[in-house]
Amino acid sequence: MKSDIEIAQATTIQPITSIAEKIGLNFDDIELYGKYKAKIPLETLEKFEKNQEGKLVLVTSINPTPAGEGKSTVTVGLADAFSRLGESVMVALREPSLGPVMGVKGGAAGGGYAQVLPMEDINLHFTGDIHAITTANNAIAAFLDNSLHQGNPLNIDPRRVIWKRVLDLNDRALRHITIGLGGPLNGVPREDGFDITVASEIMAVLCLATSLEDLKYRISKIVVAQNYDRKPVTVGELGVAGSIAMLLKDALKPNLVQTIEGTPALIHGGPFANIAHGCNSVLATKTALQLSDIVITEAGFGADLGGEKFLDIKTRQLGKTPDAVVIVATIRALKMHGGVDKKELTKENVEAVKIGFANLKRHIENMQSYGLPVIVAINQFAADTEAEIEMLSALTESLSVPISLTQVFEKGGEGGLDLARQLKKLLQEKSNFSYLYALESPISEKINKIVTEIYGGYKVNFSAKAKRQMREIEENGWTNLPICMAKTQYSFSDNPNLLAAPEGFEITVRELIPKIGAGFIVALLGDIMTMPGLPKRPAALNMDVSNDGKISGLF
Amino acid sequence: MKSDIEIAQATTIQPITSIAEKIGLNFDDIELYGKYKAKIPLETLEKFEKNQEGKLVLVTSINPTPAGEGKSTVTVGLADAFSRLGESVMVALREPSLGPVMGVKGGAAGGGYAQVLPMEDINLHFTGDIHAITTANNAIAAFLDNSLHQGNPLNIDPRRVIWKRVLDLNDRALRHITIGLGGPLNGVPREDGFDITVASEIMAVLCLATSLEDLKYRISKIVVAQNYDRKPVTVGELGVAGSIAMLLKDALKPNLVQTIEGTPALIHGGPFANIAHGCNSVLATKTALQLSDIVITEAGFGADLGGEKFLDIKTRQLGKTPDAVVIVATIRALKMHGGVDKKELTKENVEAVKIGFANLKRHIENMQSYGLPVIVAINQFAADTEAEIEMLSALTESLSVPISLTQVFEKGGEGGLDLARQLKKLLQEKSNFSYLYALESPISEKINKIVTEIYGGYKVNFSAKAKRQMREIEENGWTNLPICMAKTQYSFSDNPNLLAAPEGFEITVRELIPKIGAGFIVALLGDIMTMPGLPKRPAALNMDVSNDGKISGLF
Repeated sequence: MKSDIEIAQATTIQPITSIAEKIGLNFDDIELYGKYKAKIPLETLEKFEKNQEGKLVLVTSINPTPAGEGKSTVTVGLADAFSRLGESVMVALREPSLGPVMGVKGGAAGGGYAQVLPMEDINLHFTGDIHAITTANNAIAAFLDNSLHQGNPLNIDPRRVIWKRVLDLNDRALRHITIGLGGPLNGVPREDGFDITVASEIMAVLCLATSLEDLKYRISKIVVAQNYDRKPVTVGELGVAGSIAMLLKDALKPNLVQTIEGTPALIHGGPFANIAHGCNSVLATKTALQLSDIVITEAGFGADLGGEKFLDIKTRQLGKTPDAVVIVATIRALKMHGGVDKKELTKENVEAVKIGFANLKRHIENMQSYGLPVIVAINQFAADTEAEIEMLSALTESLSVPISLTQVFEKGGEGGLDLARQLKKLLQEKSNFSYLYALESPISEKINKIVTEIYGGYKVNFSAKAKRQMREIEENGWTNLPICMAKTQYSFSDNPNLLAAPEGFEITVRELIPKIGAGFIVALLGDIMTMPGLPKRPAALNMDVSNDGKISGLF
Repeated sequence: MKSDIEIAQATTIQPITSIAEKIGLNFDDIELYGKYKAKIPLETLEKFEKNQEGKLVLVTSINPTPAGEGKSTVTVGLADAFSRLGESVMVALREPSLGPVMGVKGGAAGGGYAQVLPMEDINLHFTGDIHAITTANNAIAAFLDNSLHQGNPLNIDPRRVIWKRVLDLNDRALRHITIGLGGPLNGVPREDGFDITVASEIMAVLCLATSLEDLKYRISKIVVAQNYDRKPVTVGELGVAGSIAMLLKDALKPNLVQTIEGTPALIHGGPFANIAHGCNSVLATKTALQLSDIVITEAGFGADLGGEKFLDIKTRQLGKTPDAVVIVATIRALKMHGGVDKKELTKENVEAVKIGFANLKRHIENMQSYGLPVIVAINQFAADTEAEIEMLSALTESLSVPISLTQVFEKGGEGGLDLARQLKKLLQEKSNFSYLYALESPISEKINKIVTEIYGGYKVNFSAKAKRQMREIEENGWTNLPICMAKTQYSFSDNPNLLAAPEGFEITVRELIPKIGAGFIVALLGDIMTMPGLPKRPAALNMDVSNDGKISGLF
């Protein structure tokens, strides 16, 4: 089979103006970025504000293997299947981060025959949103260090600066640095560090903002440091909320592209699913809901992590909850949860599928506990055997949950027709959504609910630091915010080695980090990597551009 | 009078497709970036390769005051004047850097009624070129530090890493930093620092490259460090020249915008005029020459700095030398050169104009020494008196050099009609260009020629470090490159306080920095700032964006 980029380059891509027409947008409703990308300005969104909202489908997954289970691929393929059935449908996905693209994993815009185009642009600079976020984030840092240097009028404690700089690269040497060296003309010396841009609170803010006004308000509320009295110092107090919002005014507009089969796709925003909530932007999802009858979107990592945060954080800003949930599973990941060694995953092992099913089962029950209809999508791989698939189907159906075998990577929308047909029936059911927790509950109670009711854990412990932070959060009046759990994606627990459906475990909250601009409290369980490193042979070594501008080696 | 942004926002801007039509480009020849910006892909340039080249006008200036003498404004106004005369004309300018825009000086896209539009976009993210350069520069740094971390196969000496990281911000706290702290999982500790993006060698490379192939070749030649044997280590040896060129493939395409009066303008590339050569891109200038009969372009700082480098560095890649030179002077700057205190510049002082004229005279003679016809443009200010202007005119005409009073800031193209008419005559003369130095001369001889024949100095001294570097340059076979002088813009000498036309001074070359990708040797005279700082009240404090996306406070 051809590589992703070969498939993408062999596709006849349609002018984005034609894609826009499919959803009722004319030339003046969009802003072109080249011939195949466009931004949808917020004025255009206002025109369609009164449209009847479409149905919302959330694609999530079991606890994944390090390679991922193909959630984006299924999302794209499912939308293309709906297109083939003649439905008005759109995809709403996250923007890839350049760091991992150049580092390890190559492109991140679906795969095989279920991709979004132009894949090279989407994987590289795209329409510049992430660059604008990098700039906005680092401008705040520069203004903060300048305030320290110019007499420190806000009385900022340089040992308690929370705000870090960012780059959209994998660069481990920047994790721990010291800045402001070189004498009194060169700033105030202090410890600092860079995160990857998608871990910036600005990214989370952009993804949760409902308007430019809301964006500016959220920016002003971001806490960047503590002063010598241990009180929070905000971007608003630095006096730059307006100029930072100005830097983000275009980045806030959703990006319109297309799938290989010509289905309209909005790709906008890409917050990390660990330190942030891991979903595409509220504005893009809202736009898609106004412009089409069915919207397929996804959330990062498994249903315990991105899924839970989609439901408990994003939907509160979106003002709309899903009408159905697709849980993506692979036979090889279930076998891993069933205890099979990574090297043995291509060998048939029906028993391991049966044991590993415990992981899928808990995710199904969790999503049902929100009152949502669930369907399982098997993302088929060549090594999957009939017996394994039969075992999985039987187990899933014993829970009265529908299941569908998808082959969208190899066949595009054709490989997702059965899933689309079954899902269409499901969408006619009435969902009966209820939140896991009320915002008014105490922080500890909200975390306890997530750990015991979603993760299946027994108890939550708080470190001394987390307890002190909880008191500060209460003193500052920030208790009514939702919780953004930051934990490993590999397990329901905070231990990546506890696979399948562990029980009776305890979880330790090491830190509670208030992200007041984003509007959530991050609960940090275990070590969370916010600046990845490069491998010995970075993916970039294979990448090239020919003299006439054709890219190769971007997978 | 209204502020720049008020004037810009009150202008009815034309769709960029209409501007493109004026120079013979149809919808498929350009790539839109919104409705008012476009990139011109390199394939389009090939279509017009055989067009007769237009006339090239270089706009330069006397040694400026810190506020600048309005070179960009005169460049834009002059082009608009040619448009009014019915000529086919284009402007070719540099892209503004966001750091100074947010920091001190506000916008940098001309001023008053001689601006390029959309000024907000041009001053902020524009089409993302500078962000792509930031990313490419920092990706090289990340690959270098990763190579150090992953067993150091290239034997790089971490104490001799030349390559610095960059951000397009004014951020003094990043000038001197230490990176790679935090233990063995977090890279190799070493000293480092950030420059502003426009000081990156990548920017110079992009501006001097003549094709994508040439760009990739130049990138591969960039020296990033020395190994433990004191031999140069290049980007090519890191194995990432292809992927870095890939990141720059769109940034290499010239950007088409318009002046307030609808004259087509190419704004592309913006290397610092101190550490680099300070001119817009070769590809943009070449494009303008193929698409119009007259091209007005400028070079950073005075004729001794940007002007000299335009002639001795850029034209060698451009394959075309100017047909005439406009030297911009202001009465207030001449009075400053005549010894008047900064606070007294608005008071009439004819004698000071006479004394300060020595500065303009030397610049005129310098430009004439290249065999180029020269005209002086007075950029008029409200405080200029008739007697002062008469004195300047008489002195200039005594050299048989034409002079014109321009009022383009207040009147747009109307205020530059006389300059355009006089220039048109000048363009009918045949210029007889000769380079200041031959590339084959020894490094010291080339520097000596610049210092004695252009600056009017007596002697060049080389520091011990510079002498050692000269030997290394010879050993590496890099002697045949042009020289990029890095000195203060305020004086012909390396002392910013020596105004007018100093004589008999010595100049000390502190360092010689080989920029093999850019293809020049930087000769560092005095302290050169490659990362500016923010003032006590950054310009950003006044900037804002309204709820409907309108920007204010960007001057």
